[in-house]
Amino acid sequence: MRLTTMTDYAMRLLMYVGAHPERLCTISEVAQAYGISETHLMKITHQLGLRGWIETVRGKNGGMRLATAPENISLGAVVRDIEHDLNLVECFAPDNSCVLSGRCRLSAIIGGALQRFLQHMDGYSLADILLDDSTAPPLRRAQAPKRPVAVPQGKAAGARKRASVKPG
Amino acid sequence: MRLTTMTDYAMRLLMYVGAHPERLCTISEVAQAYGISETHLMKITHQLGLRGWIETVRGKNGGMRLATAPENISLGAVVRDIEHDLNLVECFAPDNSCVLSGRCRLSAIIGGALQRFLQHMDGYSLADILLDDSTAPPLRRAQAPKRPVAVPQGKAAGARKRASVKPG
Repeated sequence: MRLTTMTDYAMRLLMYVGAHPERLCTISEVAQAYGISETHLMKITHQLGLRGWIETVRGKNGGMRLATAPENISLGAVVRDIEHDLNLVECFAPDNSCVLSGRCRLSAIIGGALQRFLQHMDGYSLADILLDDSTAPPLRRAQAPKRPVAVPQGKAAGARKRASVKPG
Repeated sequence: MRLTTMTDYAMRLLMYVGAHPERLCTISEVAQAYGISETHLMKITHQLGLRGWIETVRGKNGGMRLATAPENISLGAVVRDIEHDLNLVECFAPDNSCVLSGRCRLSAIIGGALQRFLQHMDGYSLADILLDDSTAPPLRRAQAPKRPVAVPQGKAAGARKRASVKPG
């Protein structure tokens, strides 16, 4: 049982951006800071933008920042939104073919366990896991990219309308 | 986030064997009843034998049965034992390379959520999910295999000593 890389990276990206409220961050520097895939981060940035958790600014000095206060970003909500597959067992999925479906009590028990998992995550927000600069030396070693930020456009544009920006 | 096929199949196998306490069951009939892989079930039978949850009998009319009462088989214990990968995020694994390790509060929060998940499963045993024959028609349609049971031998032999068989 593992969370997908998408969820793992989404959490790290939010932690990085949330730890630098005074400026825009770029995908390149986040990728460099963690040593992870820039391509994956582009997809995640797009998703987080659609959800209204980050907003992006185009241009040579563009980048991204949180679109709301870290306290407003529930970790449970991030898992629910980014973890595309919460079908813990076959019978949770639409293409289920288990012959026990409809009569099996196991699925309800596993469903209950998943709810406990998510409820625990709901008790925390991004504010609870932010690292400030003084405790995040590897992040400060990251260099700003030489090229303009490569943030996916398209549908994410809607999320760019600044709604309730309260930098932590 | 998904449980592995091994855990899913282990639960189904235990449910099937537990629903037929009056006789030995074979891997072939379990595979046929659920329409799942016999090879996978052989590996799972071996694991469940090592854990002392099932015992196997060799020979032409051999097969397997529960080695203890269904009430003694905790669903949480089955998940812990059969789910070989409970490293929900990279930093839970020995080969972790995340630069935040040791300073990140997210891992403890996810670890707490996993504990909630498992504690919920600990509250149930195989007895809570058994289907009796009257509610399990597809299982009764399964045919006994024509060849002798193909249960893995080797280390599993130790588990074959009948310890406390209390057929449900």
